Amino acid sequence: MKIILLQIDKTDQNFVEQGVQEFSKRLSRYVPFETITIAINKTIRNKTIEEQKLEEEKQLNSHLAKYDTIFLLDETGKEFSSLQLATQLQNILNSGKKNLCFVIGGPYGFTDALRKKHALISFSMFTFSHQLIRLLFCEQLYRAFTIIKGEKYHHQ
Amino acid sequence: MKIILLQIDKTDQNFVEQGVQEFSKRLSRYVPFETITIAINKTIRNKTIEEQKLEEEKQLNSHLAKYDTIFLLDETGKEFSSLQLATQLQNILNSGKKNLCFVIGGPYGFTDALRKKHALISFSMFTFSHQLIRLLFCEQLYRAFTIIKGEKYHHQ
Repeated sequence: MKIILLQIDKTDQNFVEQGVQEFSKRLSRYVPFETITIAINKTIRNKTIEEQKLEEEKQLNSHLAKYDTIFLLDETGKEFSSLQLATQLQNILNSGKKNLCFVIGGPYGFTDALRKKHALISFSMFTFSHQLIRLLFCEQLYRAFTIIKGEKYHHQ
Repeated sequence: MKIILLQIDKTDQNFVEQGVQEFSKRLSRYVPFETITIAINKTIRNKTIEEQKLEEEKQLNSHLAKYDTIFLLDETGKEFSSLQLATQLQNILNSGKKNLCFVIGGPYGFTDALRKKHALISFSMFTFSHQLIRLLFCEQLYRAFTIIKGEKYHHQ
């Protein structure tokens, strides 16, 4: 089982990149973990928001076809507690699936078509930047594995 | 009006500190913002969780007496959207209060006595470390001010 984080545009905030690297390193003790970054052509960023989201959808779809289980990180999705995420993850690990892909969208989020097609998971009622959410995601995935393994990182 | 972030123990993750500094700098364009860190004696950290929380409560209380409006960041609290937080903040800014204090507890959270006494605000159903939450808080407070000022950082 491999976990993939699929994201749009490279991380441009240095502290986010550092944090992501820290948690990715810790995560790799538990599971093969890979980040795939889709680079959107800069000329696309001058188009309307809808056009940008459609271009991102097209590029995401060409990757998503490869994966067994997909979750989009989207604020309209279902919220989980850390324990619930760990349980969900344990079930997927037990299912014999080959890979699990989490997707963080572009600066304006996903198209409705993508939202309707895939399972959505929300991190918070708050909106966080599509950069910062990468760090939250990596910490939470690491936390879920420490819960599964009964290690002491997660309190309560 | 001044905003204070009161926290327990200094930030030991470099990427958190960098991110906090970045958003604190941006925030200071909108509002006087100060972080106060309570250092807990290392010998206390060898005591039971309840004893640690009680010591933190004692030290927090000696600071909290100074502030008009207080919110504890606690996962049992109410969740807000970014827009709702901005509205709440605008109301407090308009109220003529002198200061507003947000509190991030220690590694095990707050005592029940503190939770009962103050307003609680939750960032997520997920548990985040008491270090990482500092970064989320600063980004969200900065975001709230960009919403209040009608600036374009916050999408949708």
